[in-house]
Amino acid sequence: MLREELNPYELGLGRNPANYVSLSPLSFIRRTAQVYPNYLSVVDGDRRYTWAETYARCRRLASALKQAGVSRGDTVAIMAPNVTAMMEAHFGVPMIGAVLNTLNVRLDAETLAFMLSHGEAKVLITDREFSPVITNALGLLAHKPLIIDIDDPQYEGGELLGETDYEAFIGTGDPEFSWELPADEWQAITLSYTSGTTGNPKGVVYHHRGAYLNAVGNVLAWNMQAHPVYLWTLPMFHCNGWCFPWTIAAVAGTHVCLRRVEAKAIFGAIRDHGVTHFSGAPIVLNAMINAPEDVKVRVTDRVIQCTTGGAAPPAAVIEGLESMGMNVTQVYGLTEVYGPSISCAWNREWDNLTTAERARIKAQQGVRYHMQEDLMVADVDTLQPCPKDGKTIGEVFIRGNLVMKGYLKNSTATEEAFAGGWFHTGDLGVLHPNGYLQIKDRSKDIVISGGENISTIEVEDVLYRHPAVLEAAVVARPDEKWGETPCAFVTLRPGVITTETALISFCREHMAHFKAPKAVVFGPLPKTSTGKVQKFLLREYAKDLNK
Amino acid sequence: MLREELNPYELGLGRNPANYVSLSPLSFIRRTAQVYPNYLSVVDGDRRYTWAETYARCRRLASALKQAGVSRGDTVAIMAPNVTAMMEAHFGVPMIGAVLNTLNVRLDAETLAFMLSHGEAKVLITDREFSPVITNALGLLAHKPLIIDIDDPQYEGGELLGETDYEAFIGTGDPEFSWELPADEWQAITLSYTSGTTGNPKGVVYHHRGAYLNAVGNVLAWNMQAHPVYLWTLPMFHCNGWCFPWTIAAVAGTHVCLRRVEAKAIFGAIRDHGVTHFSGAPIVLNAMINAPEDVKVRVTDRVIQCTTGGAAPPAAVIEGLESMGMNVTQVYGLTEVYGPSISCAWNREWDNLTTAERARIKAQQGVRYHMQEDLMVADVDTLQPCPKDGKTIGEVFIRGNLVMKGYLKNSTATEEAFAGGWFHTGDLGVLHPNGYLQIKDRSKDIVISGGENISTIEVEDVLYRHPAVLEAAVVARPDEKWGETPCAFVTLRPGVITTETALISFCREHMAHFKAPKAVVFGPLPKTSTGKVQKFLLREYAKDLNK
Repeated sequence: MLREELNPYELGLGRNPANYVSLSPLSFIRRTAQVYPNYLSVVDGDRRYTWAETYARCRRLASALKQAGVSRGDTVAIMAPNVTAMMEAHFGVPMIGAVLNTLNVRLDAETLAFMLSHGEAKVLITDREFSPVITNALGLLAHKPLIIDIDDPQYEGGELLGETDYEAFIGTGDPEFSWELPADEWQAITLSYTSGTTGNPKGVVYHHRGAYLNAVGNVLAWNMQAHPVYLWTLPMFHCNGWCFPWTIAAVAGTHVCLRRVEAKAIFGAIRDHGVTHFSGAPIVLNAMINAPEDVKVRVTDRVIQCTTGGAAPPAAVIEGLESMGMNVTQVYGLTEVYGPSISCAWNREWDNLTTAERARIKAQQGVRYHMQEDLMVADVDTLQPCPKDGKTIGEVFIRGNLVMKGYLKNSTATEEAFAGGWFHTGDLGVLHPNGYLQIKDRSKDIVISGGENISTIEVEDVLYRHPAVLEAAVVARPDEKWGETPCAFVTLRPGVITTETALISFCREHMAHFKAPKAVVFGPLPKTSTGKVQKFLLREYAKDLNK
Repeated sequence: MLREELNPYELGLGRNPANYVSLSPLSFIRRTAQVYPNYLSVVDGDRRYTWAETYARCRRLASALKQAGVSRGDTVAIMAPNVTAMMEAHFGVPMIGAVLNTLNVRLDAETLAFMLSHGEAKVLITDREFSPVITNALGLLAHKPLIIDIDDPQYEGGELLGETDYEAFIGTGDPEFSWELPADEWQAITLSYTSGTTGNPKGVVYHHRGAYLNAVGNVLAWNMQAHPVYLWTLPMFHCNGWCFPWTIAAVAGTHVCLRRVEAKAIFGAIRDHGVTHFSGAPIVLNAMINAPEDVKVRVTDRVIQCTTGGAAPPAAVIEGLESMGMNVTQVYGLTEVYGPSISCAWNREWDNLTTAERARIKAQQGVRYHMQEDLMVADVDTLQPCPKDGKTIGEVFIRGNLVMKGYLKNSTATEEAFAGGWFHTGDLGVLHPNGYLQIKDRSKDIVISGGENISTIEVEDVLYRHPAVLEAAVVARPDEKWGETPCAFVTLRPGVITTETALISFCREHMAHFKAPKAVVFGPLPKTSTGKVQKFLLREYAKDLNK
């Protein structure tokens, strides 16, 4: 082998403007606006836009922001439901090299104030619906950002807080604004704060390269054809809607916006707009399954693809969706890995299994996206991979191009997250012999009883199979003899009753006895703003049960 | 704006092994072998492989090459038709950082000797079918590479030239060989010599990043779903089969190999193996259209997607293919841009046009791939863009990530090709108002008559519409009065006759009179080894007509 610098394949064959440009999802909207200018880009209430119009509006936004003094590396925050402006911000903001910070609309004023301050937002685009909490948040800030109101006719109430509204603001911008790709594809494109059950939220930074790759990764992982109709049941503020604002631009699809995610609106959109794809938390799928029959829509001219994350879809949900013409796939991810970058890729060898068997496979989180590089389950400390036996629980590690730049202004957390050359998810799981991942727990959620690990998710899965159970959460409860034992918190279906003894017996029939909960508490479950059960509160409660 | 190095979005948020890996198409085969191990990867005569097997064979090849002393930056050449070994070389060779040089099997010994010598091939993998020409080529070399024979039972005859054959060679390799992605995604992956009508061939170098992006670019541009069945009617030696060896790995499809590209074998594969996609030169499509009726296969359970390049598909070909259940799309590219990176993306607004109108659109080369950045038609010297009026002819320029690293050991040619920050295609075309490209000519092929540019392709298109014409080529003929006039060379369909006068009249009926050929010569057309008409020979001939 020649010394590298003398190798003829390297000599004089470097990058130049003809053969290298930064990877950025902004490339896609430019192409789609040119090739499919008259295709429908957005359905939002009564409003309709084409890709030519959407592109012009995004350029107007970029131009107006520039005129307002925003430039490369500045933060533009947005507090909005899944509406037109929210989608457009995913293009208009990075067109001038600025960074889009989507805020979780369910947060309290203090947390929002922390984010606006930590992220140093220069501009805040905010929807009237959230004016009360935003007013309080702004009251806590030393330096106020420029406020731009989203004045959406679909929402009544809420004050206008700024000097200008979004439509007037972009009206001042140039629809032919000449924007440029970032000079460096590693440049930041978005900032997303993780909810974090303890401590301050951490600001996850994505770059143009990763957003580009995941935009395309969604197409491959979801086997998506051109011109999909994507229904926004997933909050766009959550991991930038799993990068779907950019995916839909890449494949010239249609965004169907939803201000409020409820069964009637979902089925209405499916019926009226030819929806082909949507993503939703388990709670969304449950709402659809449990919707009144006259609201439900059964689709026969296509199979609607649905991805879900957060908890495995139970057999009843899979079957319920299938009976309405929908196919559900579980995905797994975290804000740090651009949303789902693991998905339960289907294999035709499983087509003829029973629903129960298929549900067991669909309960697995699956395999890496095409554009994520590696996934392993390994020892938390040594990073020694666990055997792929479907049993040995280890921490889930991910590495590849769909992993964040790091946490903003938090080098300690960034270094910890990337220690050993892998991103530490903090989740515990097993790899099955075919390499498919199954999440067993958050590392801090596992129950260690008599020295044995008990996956709380496994116990919850059994509880969910009981017909009376609507929701279930299991946590560790301190125990003098065993160290810890599983304690279950259960919400029953309306109008159904059962007992603690009955549920514990049910669990003992369906799993190893030591894994069955020793106590069951009935009532509603406390949840975070993103709908996650707050297990730390349940743990406190379980501890108090001993008193 | 903060100074870049002080911007919090850059501070401490650099690349590390957890969040950055080189883009390389090798990622795809590893994933597909894991996720779809039992899916069919290759159909080659009587042989069948699964993706688990193919991946093991590629790792064996990499391992065996390493044992043979091949390492990073070394060249491995291959002279083979579209067989298993040819596809596997696209993975096994770059797995050790070596560079694959696919040789055009139609070339003469001297040209091959030039390539082997210029590319410094350390290994030559060669199929028995080409032993005579390879023997002669090797005789011209001072340093002989290690020879590995492909001993394919589908071919009879031809000597074995080396000490080992491909199957025995990879048999010495480790099926679990631990290979690595390149440290730098800009590292060379393949070397392809352009045929070049004059001077020495130029060695086009691709890198891992571009191969990765075009592998995925094909999926998007072709709107390809998972698990396609790809028929190899396109030579794999040509621009690495337009990157389809890697595309098919990415989407876990099946390669259907074809040693000999002829209508009967094509239709047989379509019938027997569920082919969903193929690419072919116009000559392949012609052979299919003109095949005997009992050989033709009409597909009704799917629409087979076919891409073609080199010359616009005439309406009769489009209609003929459609009647057999196939949809044809024209693409445009050159070796320098990874094969086709421009394609005539269809728009549903054109669905209801007549066949003639659709053919007129399908005769356009179209728009950039999703993953190519830019396309322009501009003044050859000033690079000033031409108006998008469908009329103003300029040179076609391309820039983006699907442009080669450059020409191997030829910095002059590399710099010329990239002058001004764009790749100079040397082709002439127009942009229509919707930005769709239509190629009008090679810059050296244009006819300038009385100061007016005449596109020889435009004249050829008219000639092709005449029912008696099988093939047509038009070149400039020196003329005392006009400077140049168009001179046509025509091959008639078997058993059909017409006259020079009839064809000239036909042309004058269908285009401006000054564009019609002044002379028509009947006979077979001289072609290069890649099937391109050798217009420089026709120009010589046309010149002699004056004597």
